[in-house]
Amino acid sequence: MVIRPNQHWFFRLFDWHGSVLSKIIFRLCLNVIMSIIAILIYQWYEQLGIHLTVAPFSLLGIAIAIFLGFRNNASYSRLVEARTLWGNMLITHRNILRNIKALLPEDKQFNRDFSNLLIAFSWSLKHELRKTDPMVDLYRLLPRTLFNEIMNSPYPTNRILLHIGLKIGELRDNKMISDVIFQSINKDINNLSDVLGGCERISNTPVPFAYTLILQRTVYLFCTLLPFALVADLHYMTPFVSVFISYTFLSWDSLAEELEDPFGVSANDLPLNAICNTIERNLLEMQDISPLPITVRPDKHYNLL
Amino acid sequence: MVIRPNQHWFFRLFDWHGSVLSKIIFRLCLNVIMSIIAILIYQWYEQLGIHLTVAPFSLLGIAIAIFLGFRNNASYSRLVEARTLWGNMLITHRNILRNIKALLPEDKQFNRDFSNLLIAFSWSLKHELRKTDPMVDLYRLLPRTLFNEIMNSPYPTNRILLHIGLKIGELRDNKMISDVIFQSINKDINNLSDVLGGCERISNTPVPFAYTLILQRTVYLFCTLLPFALVADLHYMTPFVSVFISYTFLSWDSLAEELEDPFGVSANDLPLNAICNTIERNLLEMQDISPLPITVRPDKHYNLL
Amino acid sequence: MVIRPNQHWFFRLFDWHGSVLSKIIFRLCLNVIMSIIAILIYQWYEQLGIHLTVAPFSLLGIAIAIFLGFRNNASYSRLVEARTLWGNMLITHRNILRNIKALLPEDKQFNRDFSNLLIAFSWSLKHELRKTDPMVDLYRLLPRTLFNEIMNSPYPTNRILLHIGLKIGELRDNKMISDVIFQSINKDINNLSDVLGGCERISNTPVPFAYTLILQRTVYLFCTLLPFALVADLHYMTPFVSVFISYTFLSWDSLAEELEDPFGVSANDLPLNAICNTIERNLLEMQDISPLPITVRPDKHYNLL
Amino acid sequence: MVIRPNQHWFFRLFDWHGSVLSKIIFRLCLNVIMSIIAILIYQWYEQLGIHLTVAPFSLLGIAIAIFLGFRNNASYSRLVEARTLWGNMLITHRNILRNIKALLPEDKQFNRDFSNLLIAFSWSLKHELRKTDPMVDLYRLLPRTLFNEIMNSPYPTNRILLHIGLKIGELRDNKMISDVIFQSINKDINNLSDVLGGCERISNTPVPFAYTLILQRTVYLFCTLLPFALVADLHYMTPFVSVFISYTFLSWDSLAEELEDPFGVSANDLPLNAICNTIERNLLEMQDISPLPITVRPDKHYNLL
Amino acid sequence: MVIRPNQHWFFRLFDWHGSVLSKIIFRLCLNVIMSIIAILIYQWYEQLGIHLTVAPFSLLGIAIAIFLGFRNNASYSRLVEARTLWGNMLITHRNILRNIKALLPEDKQFNRDFSNLLIAFSWSLKHELRKTDPMVDLYRLLPRTLFNEIMNSPYPTNRILLHIGLKIGELRDNKMISDVIFQSINKDINNLSDVLGGCERISNTPVPFAYTLILQRTVYLFCTLLPFALVADLHYMTPFVSVFISYTFLSWDSLAEELEDPFGVSANDLPLNAICNTIERNLLEMQDISPLPITVRPDKHYNLL
Repeated sequence: MVIRPNQHWFFRLFDWHGSVLSKIIFRLCLNVIMSIIAILIYQWYEQLGIHLTVAPFSLLGIAIAIFLGFRNNASYSRLVEARTLWGNMLITHRNILRNIKALLPEDKQFNRDFSNLLIAFSWSLKHELRKTDPMVDLYRLLPRTLFNEIMNSPYPTNRILLHIGLKIGELRDNKMISDVIFQSINKDINNLSDVLGGCERISNTPVPFAYTLILQRTVYLFCTLLPFALVADLHYMTPFVSVFISYTFLSWDSLAEELEDPFGVSANDLPLNAICNTIERNLLEMQDISPLPITVRPDKHYNLL
Repeated sequence: MVIRPNQHWFFRLFDWHGSVLSKIIFRLCLNVIMSIIAILIYQWYEQLGIHLTVAPFSLLGIAIAIFLGFRNNASYSRLVEARTLWGNMLITHRNILRNIKALLPEDKQFNRDFSNLLIAFSWSLKHELRKTDPMVDLYRLLPRTLFNEIMNSPYPTNRILLHIGLKIGELRDNKMISDVIFQSINKDINNLSDVLGGCERISNTPVPFAYTLILQRTVYLFCTLLPFALVADLHYMTPFVSVFISYTFLSWDSLAEELEDPFGVSANDLPLNAICNTIERNLLEMQDISPLPITVRPDKHYNLL
Repeated sequence: MVIRPNQHWFFRLFDWHGSVLSKIIFRLCLNVIMSIIAILIYQWYEQLGIHLTVAPFSLLGIAIAIFLGFRNNASYSRLVEARTLWGNMLITHRNILRNIKALLPEDKQFNRDFSNLLIAFSWSLKHELRKTDPMVDLYRLLPRTLFNEIMNSPYPTNRILLHIGLKIGELRDNKMISDVIFQSINKDINNLSDVLGGCERISNTPVPFAYTLILQRTVYLFCTLLPFALVADLHYMTPFVSVFISYTFLSWDSLAEELEDPFGVSANDLPLNAICNTIERNLLEMQDISPLPITVRPDKHYNLL
Repeated sequence: MVIRPNQHWFFRLFDWHGSVLSKIIFRLCLNVIMSIIAILIYQWYEQLGIHLTVAPFSLLGIAIAIFLGFRNNASYSRLVEARTLWGNMLITHRNILRNIKALLPEDKQFNRDFSNLLIAFSWSLKHELRKTDPMVDLYRLLPRTLFNEIMNSPYPTNRILLHIGLKIGELRDNKMISDVIFQSINKDINNLSDVLGGCERISNTPVPFAYTLILQRTVYLFCTLLPFALVADLHYMTPFVSVFISYTFLSWDSLAEELEDPFGVSANDLPLNAICNTIERNLLEMQDISPLPITVRPDKHYNLL
Repeated sequence: MVIRPNQHWFFRLFDWHGSVLSKIIFRLCLNVIMSIIAILIYQWYEQLGIHLTVAPFSLLGIAIAIFLGFRNNASYSRLVEARTLWGNMLITHRNILRNIKALLPEDKQFNRDFSNLLIAFSWSLKHELRKTDPMVDLYRLLPRTLFNEIMNSPYPTNRILLHIGLKIGELRDNKMISDVIFQSINKDINNLSDVLGGCERISNTPVPFAYTLILQRTVYLFCTLLPFALVADLHYMTPFVSVFISYTFLSWDSLAEELEDPFGVSANDLPLNAICNTIERNLLEMQDISPLPITVRPDKHYNLL
């Protein structure tokens, strides 16, 4: 996620890191080359009686824009849903810890252990979604035997959730909470289960690949042929207008593809590190533990991972 | 579902299996033939004073693109809803098994039998939605008498759900769980009932047939007439531009139709086999049973069924 | 609802019953007549210095297409919501009966009477929404005194729901279920209340009439004037292209109007008979009653009512 | 709300009261005057070398149509949400009364008093939203002391809700209902609170005023300049085509503004009187009280308030 | 939020403060300058054989309009979600206080203290979202020790929520409410937690920055080049039409950016002050406390903060 709140509109025109420009610069260069070819062979193909006018490209371009709008909608919905799920995790973690503090007699060690389980759940999910190794984070948060069990499981995040549930079950077995309270906290644990399952679903099920494929083909072919349609009117100005129109279409296509997997580490993805850090800070703060871990800061290109 | 995450954009232009190209290739060939006819008879109909310009086709093409956008939205929503329902099934199965483990004294055989009922529910729903025979899967998961009862029922999946409910009712009758806990687990079973009913609804109620019909007619007629509108300007280039525009419209129409029934076995449908396998692996893993069944892999065209 | 799953795309082009063609054929004929008039008076009004070009119609046609897209979205959402409500009814009926079977000692007569109340609720709602007489269906399902009471009520479906609620209240009064269980089943009855209230809302509150009116006026006027804009270029081809464009716009407008009331009996409305039949079959099957009523089949035009 | 279900499509073309025509007729007349001015000064400004073609207006018109589509979406969503909230009120009122009847020993006077509180809640909310005086309706429904208290409160509807809650609290204090039942009915009262808060939110927070302003400015300016762009081609036909296009844009803009406040009394707003009447009739019918108040009928222009 | 309900449509054309005009006036002036440059150099670049026609700009403009529509949708959804969350806060506050009054024996001091906690929650969230100092508001609402604790916390709003939860936990410890009632009120507190977490999510996670960047670049470049495309036909009229089209695009872009952060203090953001004031007045009125704090009024430009 790029965070750059107060940039003046004028400087935005020349911002390199915030946009997807780095990803499509090669294709834009190709477009310039096609424009130059178009200018060079223009007189020759004019003699063949071929008049490539803008009209069919206008029809095609607007149709592609409508389809690009659809795909961006689909990709953006996934991003919003993923962000909402992670937001719900923070909310639910707070609710569970608030209930523990309001319902049980004060027991700092138990609270600490239990909140560590919740924090481990967040970090483990982050590592699962980004396919990185959770060892370092889980090692500092979990007791040794549990750590070994989690690391050996093919579904580590779900196993942590199972232990959260078993811990609440133990409280009920020890008559520290009634069935009514068990069911109330269990609802919160089900919320965590929703977050886990929802993130796995988004991560495992992309937007149908054919959408990506059809759009990219038509966008690339459209941009490649565009200079030949523009050259009759624009002549030497062809490369400028052609690159401008191509930039509009290629960048929207590229951004839609980037947002499709909201759990990645590219510039427009969710800052899972920062969210996990916020969750950890919140849960520790609720127990008056200090000092809190320091907050995650964006890097020099204003990227927050 | 096609899974092809790291294909370079250049190679995507020539990808055959990922897109719907195989379904519309015949219609694209027809389009080439129409283009050639248009070139051949061009001079003759020009003398009749008929000037088929791009302008009315531009209006029509954009209108069709807007309507195609609408239908793709409708079809894609069905896909997303179907996927969410199956995701909820995994979430709910995990929740039920977690509750069983947290609430009841450990009884491995009961847990195994009960989780087999849940797994059988998933496979049975898959077979119901794809209209295949559930016998093999149910035979390995259910006890004999129950298996016979299920196989003779016209609504096998709902009957498995009924038995899941009766099993929890028995626990209550035996005073192993209180009414509060019964109601809590019953909510999860209601969730399974939502999944079952939701999938049946999507499967039984297509997008109104008239949408499919009107769009296909207008798209086909549009593509057929298009070469005659293009030929005046483009001459020998007509087939290329005409096939390009037709590909854009035909592929979107074809994809919308494919996504409309998300439970099929075509390239862009849901990988129900893989989801059922994931559910089975998850539930067994939560009981520390090993070895787990091996995961389903995509075939050589990256298709996951 | 038209069910025609495996029709070849070629034959779809000539399908008469599936589309809304029968509803707009008269207006399409009018369009042909306008086209012929346009051809006849073309030379005369050309001399008046009037050049009706496609350009303003292009602008207008695309604007109308955008507004038609909006209205189709609104109408289609109503259809989807209505279908979801009826799907929820089936789900809830199953849940209630499953709970009855899991919680109460087996009493076949009570189950049969109670499930008949649920089935009567479905049929009564169908008759209320289609404004038909519920007598035949209610007579075979309800005991005599209750039948008389329901038939005399201005809100028969709500009164059946009241009796469902009172019956569960009786179970509680007789100490057969606890307050917790009562509240759990009451939630399901509230779901039925949601279905009832939701269907009444959709049925009583159409999409604002002005949307229908404005769109129909502009679509008709647009189609009427279109031939005069096309004739300058197309000459003798005017009727064909004009009818083609008019078909696209008129059929979308007509379909949106048809879907607006999803409880009607036209070709694209919900098959309430078939859904009620499915509900009845499901509830009887859960009680092992046989033979089940036969399923509703589409008629020879593949219409399912 | 205008109710005119079976009007023939031909007569709809000349319907005056159903559409927003009365609101925009003055602006359409202005448009005719601009058209005449355009015809008169056409030759003069042609000599200045200015060629106002349709092309830039085509671009602008389609952009405006897209933005109008967005705003209509926003306004229509508000209407749908408002209608759903009022539908939920009817559903919840029925649920509460059904529970009262199923759970408490029969007490006609209590039921009557309590249902009057519910009915008073509906009427009071209607008056609050339409900024009319609730006195007459509350006077006939509430006991004197309560009536005085409500009339003196700045938030009368919320105060009625408070008394509904207190009354249920009294039942619990008197041990007539358990905590479980209290909580169940309290959930329904929370639903009423959602309806109240939701309606207040819609009523107090319009669509951002800048949307209205920007769109109206661009629509009016667009319609004003349009004749000058059309006159070169259309000559004496300019007023007709110009008024036609202006009608399409002005009526959509006007309708969006009308729907923005769904609680008003214009032709396309919600019929709150009729809904309140339906609620009252439903609650009385559930208590077998007769005669029921007569239903509200649309006026001679088919308007239902 | 600008509140200007009954302004005549004619005066809206000249409204300065309601729209985003003040934000884009500089860019519109730039556009006039570009138009004048275009007129001046027109003849010179015409001789180079360059014909900048409207056609490619038409294609580009419509594509940009579609993308602007998408971004406005995204921004407006955030505004609606934020407003709904704040509306839910009022609803939940009312529900909690109604429950307190219905369930506990009357204790004015406790009610006052507790409702002050709820009111403090609202004001604290407002200050957190607007990054202002909550001291003044919290000082008048909270007891001294609590005030100090909250002011020292990095997450003051969440800490207030924790104390709300602890207070309800105390009631349960003192056997004043049962577990069932605790769980019921706890659900309401979870709702407040949802509001807090939801607002933080909207505030911390903007629409992906690349959307803003790509759109602004293309919109600005489009507006800058537009005069050169218009000048061939429009000549001296170029500045007027160019500014008109630019106004449409720039104002939509600017408004989308403004709405993206709904918690700011610009003209189209949410009136958090007024909402907090309404919440405070509502909670005090429910306890018959008078006089109520005076309502917040819009300033002379009809802005409500």
